[in-house]
Amino acid sequence: MTEQKSIGIAVVGAGYWGPNLVRNAAATPALRLEYLCDLDTERARTVLGAYSTVRVSGSLDEVLADPAVDAVAVATPAATHLPVAMAALRAGKHVLVEKPLAATVSDGRALVDEAQARGLVLMLDHTYCYTPAVQRLRELVRGGEIGSVQYLDSVRINLGLVQPDVDVLWDLAPHDLSIFLSILPDDIVPVSVAAHGSDPIGAGRACVGHLTLELSNGAMAHVHVNWLSPTKIRTMVIGGSERTVVWDDLNLLQRLAVHDRGVERKGAIDLGPEERTRAIISYRTGDMVAPALPEREALRAVMAEFAASIGERRAPLTDGWAGLRVLTILEAASKSLASGGVFVDVEQEHMVGGAVA
Amino acid sequence: MTEQKSIGIAVVGAGYWGPNLVRNAAATPALRLEYLCDLDTERARTVLGAYSTVRVSGSLDEVLADPAVDAVAVATPAATHLPVAMAALRAGKHVLVEKPLAATVSDGRALVDEAQARGLVLMLDHTYCYTPAVQRLRELVRGGEIGSVQYLDSVRINLGLVQPDVDVLWDLAPHDLSIFLSILPDDIVPVSVAAHGSDPIGAGRACVGHLTLELSNGAMAHVHVNWLSPTKIRTMVIGGSERTVVWDDLNLLQRLAVHDRGVERKGAIDLGPEERTRAIISYRTGDMVAPALPEREALRAVMAEFAASIGERRAPLTDGWAGLRVLTILEAASKSLASGGVFVDVEQEHMVGGAVA
Amino acid sequence: MTEQKSIGIAVVGAGYWGPNLVRNAAATPALRLEYLCDLDTERARTVLGAYSTVRVSGSLDEVLADPAVDAVAVATPAATHLPVAMAALRAGKHVLVEKPLAATVSDGRALVDEAQARGLVLMLDHTYCYTPAVQRLRELVRGGEIGSVQYLDSVRINLGLVQPDVDVLWDLAPHDLSIFLSILPDDIVPVSVAAHGSDPIGAGRACVGHLTLELSNGAMAHVHVNWLSPTKIRTMVIGGSERTVVWDDLNLLQRLAVHDRGVERKGAIDLGPEERTRAIISYRTGDMVAPALPEREALRAVMAEFAASIGERRAPLTDGWAGLRVLTILEAASKSLASGGVFVDVEQEHMVGGAVA
Amino acid sequence: MTEQKSIGIAVVGAGYWGPNLVRNAAATPALRLEYLCDLDTERARTVLGAYSTVRVSGSLDEVLADPAVDAVAVATPAATHLPVAMAALRAGKHVLVEKPLAATVSDGRALVDEAQARGLVLMLDHTYCYTPAVQRLRELVRGGEIGSVQYLDSVRINLGLVQPDVDVLWDLAPHDLSIFLSILPDDIVPVSVAAHGSDPIGAGRACVGHLTLELSNGAMAHVHVNWLSPTKIRTMVIGGSERTVVWDDLNLLQRLAVHDRGVERKGAIDLGPEERTRAIISYRTGDMVAPALPEREALRAVMAEFAASIGERRAPLTDGWAGLRVLTILEAASKSLASGGVFVDVEQEHMVGGAVA
Repeated sequence: MTEQKSIGIAVVGAGYWGPNLVRNAAATPALRLEYLCDLDTERARTVLGAYSTVRVSGSLDEVLADPAVDAVAVATPAATHLPVAMAALRAGKHVLVEKPLAATVSDGRALVDEAQARGLVLMLDHTYCYTPAVQRLRELVRGGEIGSVQYLDSVRINLGLVQPDVDVLWDLAPHDLSIFLSILPDDIVPVSVAAHGSDPIGAGRACVGHLTLELSNGAMAHVHVNWLSPTKIRTMVIGGSERTVVWDDLNLLQRLAVHDRGVERKGAIDLGPEERTRAIISYRTGDMVAPALPEREALRAVMAEFAASIGERRAPLTDGWAGLRVLTILEAASKSLASGGVFVDVEQEHMVGGAVA
Repeated sequence: MTEQKSIGIAVVGAGYWGPNLVRNAAATPALRLEYLCDLDTERARTVLGAYSTVRVSGSLDEVLADPAVDAVAVATPAATHLPVAMAALRAGKHVLVEKPLAATVSDGRALVDEAQARGLVLMLDHTYCYTPAVQRLRELVRGGEIGSVQYLDSVRINLGLVQPDVDVLWDLAPHDLSIFLSILPDDIVPVSVAAHGSDPIGAGRACVGHLTLELSNGAMAHVHVNWLSPTKIRTMVIGGSERTVVWDDLNLLQRLAVHDRGVERKGAIDLGPEERTRAIISYRTGDMVAPALPEREALRAVMAEFAASIGERRAPLTDGWAGLRVLTILEAASKSLASGGVFVDVEQEHMVGGAVA
Repeated sequence: MTEQKSIGIAVVGAGYWGPNLVRNAAATPALRLEYLCDLDTERARTVLGAYSTVRVSGSLDEVLADPAVDAVAVATPAATHLPVAMAALRAGKHVLVEKPLAATVSDGRALVDEAQARGLVLMLDHTYCYTPAVQRLRELVRGGEIGSVQYLDSVRINLGLVQPDVDVLWDLAPHDLSIFLSILPDDIVPVSVAAHGSDPIGAGRACVGHLTLELSNGAMAHVHVNWLSPTKIRTMVIGGSERTVVWDDLNLLQRLAVHDRGVERKGAIDLGPEERTRAIISYRTGDMVAPALPEREALRAVMAEFAASIGERRAPLTDGWAGLRVLTILEAASKSLASGGVFVDVEQEHMVGGAVA
Repeated sequence: MTEQKSIGIAVVGAGYWGPNLVRNAAATPALRLEYLCDLDTERARTVLGAYSTVRVSGSLDEVLADPAVDAVAVATPAATHLPVAMAALRAGKHVLVEKPLAATVSDGRALVDEAQARGLVLMLDHTYCYTPAVQRLRELVRGGEIGSVQYLDSVRINLGLVQPDVDVLWDLAPHDLSIFLSILPDDIVPVSVAAHGSDPIGAGRACVGHLTLELSNGAMAHVHVNWLSPTKIRTMVIGGSERTVVWDDLNLLQRLAVHDRGVERKGAIDLGPEERTRAIISYRTGDMVAPALPEREALRAVMAEFAASIGERRAPLTDGWAGLRVLTILEAASKSLASGGVFVDVEQEHMVGGAVA
């Protein structure tokens, strides 16, 4: 037991997400939770509660100087990811960082390079990628069960906090993009993106956003994110030539539905031009299967993967490159948004390499 | 009773939609159903069934020459709307035509001009505009109950027939566009549109499509249409400053949900740049009301409005101009699609005028 | 075609259900619709509409005297089923009758005997038994796919018309009972029934009702019917040792859900008394399959079966015995209701015999 | 702060529910969590986790002897409630006990008497009564907004652990009964109960159960509980003369639906016997309102009420009498079950008195 808990971890940031990291780190046998660090030490104490032996610190320097700390989980605002994570890496600590990796691709690349140079784990907390639903989606899509990928569509709308520093695309779309990248086969990558956004409440940034991605196989992926919707929708559809999967994350009793149903073009038949199309399209209607999925907290699996990648000295499933890929698409999307919604090429340099997530 | 049935009507086209027109025309007291006209007279007879006194004709000329026919309902393929409807108008018949009005704006304009010159009714069968749900939406939005319009979002996806002559935007989006135009106040009109589409099955035309419309008040409207989805979704969200309405047309027991809930920007408060945004946004959470709606077939109301507008010598709710406005947006969308998704201005000439629908 | 339409049929009763019989009889190739018969001939004419060649008659005698009429479909109030159906049988006509077969078991038996003596078809319009959902349920249950039957539970509640002549059990439960009898294997029959009812609005008869049936294999079946519910629920659960099926008739996109999931007692293991039970129960969690079902109107299949059974001189799927069995259970239920809810034996005489439905 | 935490509490039982009590006691400002007590101290330590300052004890005597302990929360098996809670009361501790209060009414009465004699708080953890949904239901029903109560119907089915010591009625129905008692006006009480149960898996006790309660105002309440259902349903309908409320506890976005819809008997009109009923029943169809409900953990409110009732020396909302009333109904239900489902009178002695919950 003592041996297992050989990795000392500090959580930095006691805001929205920090308490979840604290709870899950504390429940992970391979981790030994040493600190909750936040400038607001009163807040950190409240998060830990009245009965905790975990230490509070208001000083990142103090935490990084402590040799009992082997790893750091960063849950501070995105703009501070670069300095906080860089300081941690330079102090020789493994780093788990909230999405997005950093505020820009170049900042993110600096972190990836630093971690690589020092042989440290740099992991992205792309929490959704560790849900049983996405792991099954990954099998279904990468494993070929759905056939060739025809389209992806994700809707993530609810009444959300208008963020002070980022628009709705940077706030919510990283979830969708990290999931897309996680489930798509290696040879299908986004090649260009168009972004539309609007700010109907005068918040100073887009509160409703749409992303259209052209994939390298010709398919289209679409993301709709919205902070202003009174109803909450979390749905993703992945259309394939053999099967189509619908993931409704709010349908607790039936999150995934695999439809053996679709539309196919039959082999070429020589018909007159008018009837040609109708004749060569066939419809297949089969059963729907809702696979049994385990119920478990994804963040627990994130922590386990972080600990395992440190212990096994390997890249985690969602490594720095996965974070870079999301940043790359977001930067292209922002460029599109600023240019009136034209398609902008997605820089391919970071779209391959690193561990596949 | 005889007096009521003073308007003789012929239905032209016994294909997908024609039988619905026949059934509803026959059930409308003010109409006297004279003919079902189709080149395929066997098919027409099958539609009428073995016990009908309605005549079948294979000749449009014969039907138009019959003085018992006062009006014609056209349910032929879109490409034939111009010649069929034009012939009917020139024969002095009032015309009800399926969406879209015609294949091009200029064709549509020719029909509108012809009807106007002859003092005949030209009505579009924008069926959805006559549903109890849309009529309530119209009251809620135009009546100001939802406050100022912040965004519109419509999803219309299912496993649909790949059409031989039109893409998914021309096939399905007319529904969404005619509804948008029907419920928006007169001073909010689409000013530009961007269209994205993909054809992952090699059908020769877009099977998945997205439209983004910029409205004159700065809000954004979005339409997602898809022929390839194994699940059927028919949802529209209209976000307002006071209320947000969700219309789920497949939720028979609760089609409309009016949420007294939203996001607002409060008056300017002088804060530091970091906190400024968060501080001036307020969330309001109130009840949801699902208004009781009558259950009735929309097409029955279409027929009643057609008969009434003829009888009262007035423009119908969805007149030719309503059809022209939809065509104008579709043409701009096709231009955007062909130009890689850039925003294309919506020609404003036809966006006002005629009866408001 | 002419040959096919060799069976002349008259529909008797132009009330709530009659129009559906008219529409489906008219659409059935093997039937030739001759009359719609109702004392209120104006109402009958309205049902047929302005364009029908079908004759209206206000006289049952006239209809039964017409040799063009081979068969009669009876949709009059339950209390009149005996005289109307008996007259038809005595006139040598085959009879399709609405549920319930008659007002009492002995009346129903008289009809069954009369039909049998004359070699005529007597069929019950147990419409639900002809839905694709029930036909699949029948395969799943009788075919053994769900394992042994452990329980049945049916809920049929909505805002319903308070009937002037029957309570909610007699009005709605025939649906559930006919479905139970149709899907259960021949060797599982109801042996006793307890009924509870209440009349909270002072209607003079039970408006809320519960039936509990003890089946011959020891399992329990339960029916909840309610005229006073503002929400409509139509759900049936059939629990089996291998699979459990949930039928939600209002979930158009997923009517049946077959859960490969359940609870099982494992073989005897010698444990202490306290732990014994927990140890020998195992839980199985597998996928859920929603079988693809055709969309078709059940009443069309009822008409086809009626025509086929006449043509093939055989008993229909839901013959008079099926109707008798439902009546037998309803009579026992009424006896229980009058006796304070005690279990009342279900007379077994009619529970077997005739065609199995 | 120190002053607030003046009530020292120990949780007894580290099984299924204990961890929830621990978590919520620790988060309640007015409570000071002193011990988690369980014979299996290893399990208790696991529940507390590696970072807790809360003490573990394997000895109830030790805990009760500690003057720092003012109150005890009991989450042990039902059979042990009597000795554990009695020991706590005799040691002068206030007691919060899981449902059911005890294994029998007389055991429960002994606890109530003991607490009363000693002036100690005896509170039942009827958790559901502290949910925002039930509290709103209580207002709607007791406040008269729904009019007079016409029927209640509760369904609580899922794949549940077959309990070693109690049947499904004793395991699940206490939830439904405590809710009924909590929301009904004081003058509407259960007067008799009939119970049906079946054990299709040979577990040695009923796994499927139905309760029918006759209420003192003539209305009927029904409870369906089931351990064997692969689908989870948690629905309650309360029908009133003015409104009907549907509570679907699994519909997170719309737990309560208040339907302004119902059935009413109009004043006496002199009609013929046949038409009388139909004529005097009227249907009202209005909107549905889904009230906004706060999201909060009910157990937090339980803990707050426990602390408040101790601090304010008053009976809690769900006091020992509330627990006795549930026990009284359960005992009558068991008697009915053993007697073939006949209605058994509910002993009225405990149905009034104590605080109303």
